[in-house]
Amino acid sequence: MKINIVNPNTTASMTAKIGECARQVAAPGTEIWACNPTTGPVSIEGHYDEAMCVPGLLAEIRRAEAAGADAHIIACFGDPGLEAAREIASGPVFGIAEAAMHAASFVGKHFSIVTTLGRTCGIAAHLAERYGMQRFCRNIRACEIAVLDLDNPASDAYAAIMQECRLALEQDDVDCIVLGCAGMADLCQAISKELGVPVIDGVSAAVTFAEGLVRLGLQTSKRGEWNYPLAKQYL
Amino acid sequence: MKINIVNPNTTASMTAKIGECARQVAAPGTEIWACNPTTGPVSIEGHYDEAMCVPGLLAEIRRAEAAGADAHIIACFGDPGLEAAREIASGPVFGIAEAAMHAASFVGKHFSIVTTLGRTCGIAAHLAERYGMQRFCRNIRACEIAVLDLDNPASDAYAAIMQECRLALEQDDVDCIVLGCAGMADLCQAISKELGVPVIDGVSAAVTFAEGLVRLGLQTSKRGEWNYPLAKQYL
Amino acid sequence: MKINIVNPNTTASMTAKIGECARQVAAPGTEIWACNPTTGPVSIEGHYDEAMCVPGLLAEIRRAEAAGADAHIIACFGDPGLEAAREIASGPVFGIAEAAMHAASFVGKHFSIVTTLGRTCGIAAHLAERYGMQRFCRNIRACEIAVLDLDNPASDAYAAIMQECRLALEQDDVDCIVLGCAGMADLCQAISKELGVPVIDGVSAAVTFAEGLVRLGLQTSKRGEWNYPLAKQYL
Amino acid sequence: MKINIVNPNTTASMTAKIGECARQVAAPGTEIWACNPTTGPVSIEGHYDEAMCVPGLLAEIRRAEAAGADAHIIACFGDPGLEAAREIASGPVFGIAEAAMHAASFVGKHFSIVTTLGRTCGIAAHLAERYGMQRFCRNIRACEIAVLDLDNPASDAYAAIMQECRLALEQDDVDCIVLGCAGMADLCQAISKELGVPVIDGVSAAVTFAEGLVRLGLQTSKRGEWNYPLAKQYL
Amino acid sequence: MKINIVNPNTTASMTAKIGECARQVAAPGTEIWACNPTTGPVSIEGHYDEAMCVPGLLAEIRRAEAAGADAHIIACFGDPGLEAAREIASGPVFGIAEAAMHAASFVGKHFSIVTTLGRTCGIAAHLAERYGMQRFCRNIRACEIAVLDLDNPASDAYAAIMQECRLALEQDDVDCIVLGCAGMADLCQAISKELGVPVIDGVSAAVTFAEGLVRLGLQTSKRGEWNYPLAKQYL
Amino acid sequence: MKINIVNPNTTASMTAKIGECARQVAAPGTEIWACNPTTGPVSIEGHYDEAMCVPGLLAEIRRAEAAGADAHIIACFGDPGLEAAREIASGPVFGIAEAAMHAASFVGKHFSIVTTLGRTCGIAAHLAERYGMQRFCRNIRACEIAVLDLDNPASDAYAAIMQECRLALEQDDVDCIVLGCAGMADLCQAISKELGVPVIDGVSAAVTFAEGLVRLGLQTSKRGEWNYPLAKQYL
Repeated sequence: MKINIVNPNTTASMTAKIGECARQVAAPGTEIWACNPTTGPVSIEGHYDEAMCVPGLLAEIRRAEAAGADAHIIACFGDPGLEAAREIASGPVFGIAEAAMHAASFVGKHFSIVTTLGRTCGIAAHLAERYGMQRFCRNIRACEIAVLDLDNPASDAYAAIMQECRLALEQDDVDCIVLGCAGMADLCQAISKELGVPVIDGVSAAVTFAEGLVRLGLQTSKRGEWNYPLAKQYL
Repeated sequence: MKINIVNPNTTASMTAKIGECARQVAAPGTEIWACNPTTGPVSIEGHYDEAMCVPGLLAEIRRAEAAGADAHIIACFGDPGLEAAREIASGPVFGIAEAAMHAASFVGKHFSIVTTLGRTCGIAAHLAERYGMQRFCRNIRACEIAVLDLDNPASDAYAAIMQECRLALEQDDVDCIVLGCAGMADLCQAISKELGVPVIDGVSAAVTFAEGLVRLGLQTSKRGEWNYPLAKQYL
Repeated sequence: MKINIVNPNTTASMTAKIGECARQVAAPGTEIWACNPTTGPVSIEGHYDEAMCVPGLLAEIRRAEAAGADAHIIACFGDPGLEAAREIASGPVFGIAEAAMHAASFVGKHFSIVTTLGRTCGIAAHLAERYGMQRFCRNIRACEIAVLDLDNPASDAYAAIMQECRLALEQDDVDCIVLGCAGMADLCQAISKELGVPVIDGVSAAVTFAEGLVRLGLQTSKRGEWNYPLAKQYL
Repeated sequence: MKINIVNPNTTASMTAKIGECARQVAAPGTEIWACNPTTGPVSIEGHYDEAMCVPGLLAEIRRAEAAGADAHIIACFGDPGLEAAREIASGPVFGIAEAAMHAASFVGKHFSIVTTLGRTCGIAAHLAERYGMQRFCRNIRACEIAVLDLDNPASDAYAAIMQECRLALEQDDVDCIVLGCAGMADLCQAISKELGVPVIDGVSAAVTFAEGLVRLGLQTSKRGEWNYPLAKQYL
Repeated sequence: MKINIVNPNTTASMTAKIGECARQVAAPGTEIWACNPTTGPVSIEGHYDEAMCVPGLLAEIRRAEAAGADAHIIACFGDPGLEAAREIASGPVFGIAEAAMHAASFVGKHFSIVTTLGRTCGIAAHLAERYGMQRFCRNIRACEIAVLDLDNPASDAYAAIMQECRLALEQDDVDCIVLGCAGMADLCQAISKELGVPVIDGVSAAVTFAEGLVRLGLQTSKRGEWNYPLAKQYL
Repeated sequence: MKINIVNPNTTASMTAKIGECARQVAAPGTEIWACNPTTGPVSIEGHYDEAMCVPGLLAEIRRAEAAGADAHIIACFGDPGLEAAREIASGPVFGIAEAAMHAASFVGKHFSIVTTLGRTCGIAAHLAERYGMQRFCRNIRACEIAVLDLDNPASDAYAAIMQECRLALEQDDVDCIVLGCAGMADLCQAISKELGVPVIDGVSAAVTFAEGLVRLGLQTSKRGEWNYPLAKQYL
């Protein structure tokens, strides 16, 4: 089984980290393809960045689809281009926010999301509503570290994220944490161990859900809104 | 990995069928335990039946928990006793309605449920609300075949279910079907092939989701409402 | 008129207290039957306890039904087994959370619930949603006193409950309080007097609503989901 | 106990009928006062009629309050002036739509409302939302008979209402009917008998609920929005 | 184009201020008519006041309608009588709360309302729900200054309103403010300048929306609920 | 005042038609700029088309912003890129679906949308939810004419649209129609005249609302999510 993970920003080091995290949870026999667009923003922190990354992201989906990918994962917590990707993919397509929120609803009564910059919280809130997960999501907290600073030791990202996670457990009446950025995937297990509650990274969650749907033989429905795009001229 | 599937009614032939369907989608290395309570109703078709099956079902969860089960599945579309089971389990616990509805939301815009008796439709509607899946569920249709008649050739269950599935596609504006009874698990692939849209059986879906969560190391949160029951006297 | 009140736990002293409170508000001519199951947990503080009390509770409903009860009340704030009871009863059946929340919506704009242990708050929240009372319920507060400690003078339950009621009025923007446990029924009037706002005990509220429906000749509808259970074999 | 019922239109024959229906369900010892404003429209069929009846209705509330009424009922299915009445009353105040919908939610899973003119359906829908009863109300049907024609034998109101009730049971998936006009109060029992499901008249329901709250010692909360109006000059 | 603005209280100085604010934003060629009823309360601070102002308000709508008004605005933040006014008007009718909330949803992600007395907050919350604006409205704050004290220099209204606006920006996670009283219309620009975020006065907003609809040729639909009132006798 | 209208597809004849319709309702002194991207799909009929048009659309917003536009309108009924555009614009930005739905809520109780292809209905439904207009929108109907066929006489678009409008009035219980495509702007008045109810074109509605907000001095709030995009590298 081949699962194609697209990091929609153009930062190759982040793509590598995402691929590594994915491989750690993939079942034997699953091949993980990790890629990113060649054009677009180096990080995604708002509606404009999202809009600008999507054409490149869709090109990666098309490329992997032609290469025989069984499923696709969009590895940015805003799930940019998810429905457009579903139109051009045959197999299942997951957003990592989607996968993470659903997983959280299975193991906890309520979760808080801990994400990067405050300006992205509204995007996560909107996704929670679209996926029906609003009733499980109690709060969305920003540690105010930019995406590309997560890997900068000077940012002390781990401490800042832990701080927001602890506040979530103390103040939000939740029993589960969702990490709100693909760039936090490598911190998930350590945080969970320290907090003693389920902590969910969407990249890993999406990998196992995608494997599951492929094993079930489920593909994106082509009956309605997610049918292949109409053939038309592009200038 | 050991996954414990409890058929909450006391009909052993149905338990066997459920186990078989589960094993067909399980990953290599997954051990499927299929069991049912020794006391309780032979089928579950309403609130009273649900209430009466739960103590036996919980005993099976406890037994499997002691035997080292990594996850549990409650294989009745009303998901009876789900939250009580989460209190006594350490690993993840899935209801098959829960798993099926979430899976449907990943591959289709909207689904209809096709279930057995009309008197159970309200239970499914209530679950859709609890799981946040109400916005994806457009209709709940009953083929008016009792659970134990699904295996009775005289009932012509396949034809009756197909009929409701077709009506769902024609009238409900959906692109995906959820089968609303564990006893329909064996019909899922044939129906999907005939209709050309994703058709989802909750037993299979729950198996792959449970495998995924176990692989992710996620367990039922013990921080809040699903903590182990308080020790107390039972008369 | 005969109203059957089932305390679903097995603590007889609590049953006696509930019966007494009920009789204080019952109209002349109303006979109050107070009972409890002979098997099950001594108190109900979570989903598991609820699940385990229900078969005994339903046996009491059946017994009273045979004895000619005109209506039934389930005297535990989680309203366990309410819909199952409606299937086997002919007359109206009330949960005390149901009755209390509806009564609160008649005399106040918004209420807070003050209950026993924090682990039960989610159950009350779920009921508020089911009854359509979510829009009136602003908060659910736990005084963290176990059900059986309410009558233990050492717990100083009255003070702890008063403290949460006062916080509710100060912080929750409510004008009405609902007491979240049948074991608090005897404290209702004193608290109301001290706070100067309506304070509602579900046992008393349920008695007057049940009397009303019986007087109106209204019975549980047998047309749909609450029809009598299907006859079937129980192992 | 004295319960003041205000028919907010100025048609005295309708007031008499309402009073009679109320007395039939009132408990021994309950005194029913039935009155109507001296000014305003002869029937209420829309927002404008509602707005014009309210000052006269509030005058009747004030008058009865001064005379020692323990509770008030507004006997028009649009519940006009309900919150304004709660500001000037000390005891509980019920609208008949409010009482009917709540009663219906106690004995059925879902109800349809059968009312007079189609132009009033939106008012009933709005009330269902305000009372949290939207989730129980499946449809609002108009028999297109004007309020004052209900008593006109030529209108054959009983047959027209029965027709809509039957359609509701066949098409709306409901197990309970709410009659949407105080002028239908006298038909309630006959319709219920013929249909075999609970049929609810708001006047009767409001009487028993008001009796209940008075017996419980509950009064309109004066802590917040329903406090007595501020003293001010009226031109 | 003639736009009729009714201040529904009987305080002429407030009517003058409203008219002046309206004229400042009106397009060239728009004639602003500002009026108030001759009977009713001098200010509107609750349900009772609202109920009592409506007949006088409707008389002003009728009068202006006869005089050829193209649109009407009800200049009180509770939007009293809005639907009744729509029944008797031919052109569009706006409430100022309606206009302000919609305008806020166009320029900000979320708004808080800053209003006069706390007892009116529930009315504004109800309107937010009716207009679909609940999802944009994060909080409703009262500065606890009575309507008629807004113009009393001793009240220091500007400082008190500014204080609540600042708290809204700090605590409510909003990027936009709605002023919750027609009597605050003259303060809008100064507050906006000082805070650096959009601050919205409903009178001005309603004027430009009303002009827009008239220019589009849109009138109140007479097909359904807002059709002209039925002819009937008024006592 | 300069209002920049971007037709996000690359069909210049449609841009011309949109500009013409806009100029017909613009106030004296308003300058209408109508433009379209130089790259992207010739029509927009699904998520993929939307995603692909957005970068070109945003370039047009930037260009007009630099040229001094006071407000922007996105003239495609899916409102593609609306929030991204709000990040880069200083003045107000409207989507035509947004403007049309809000306008409809002002003049009718409920509306149906009549749009082009069925595969776009879900996009409109999602927008109705985001704008809080879901409660006013009763149905979304497709006439199954592709966007570019609207101007093809052979499609008989006018008749097909009229047919769906008539069905909406007969079956959906609405009193108002929203046209769901910028390409229908020129048909709006004729349809309204024929049906006798308000029929709303989003281009015209957006023009008058944009004029209104500019006149009020309201600009897109830069305090939160819609602040200017962070400076970052684009590959």
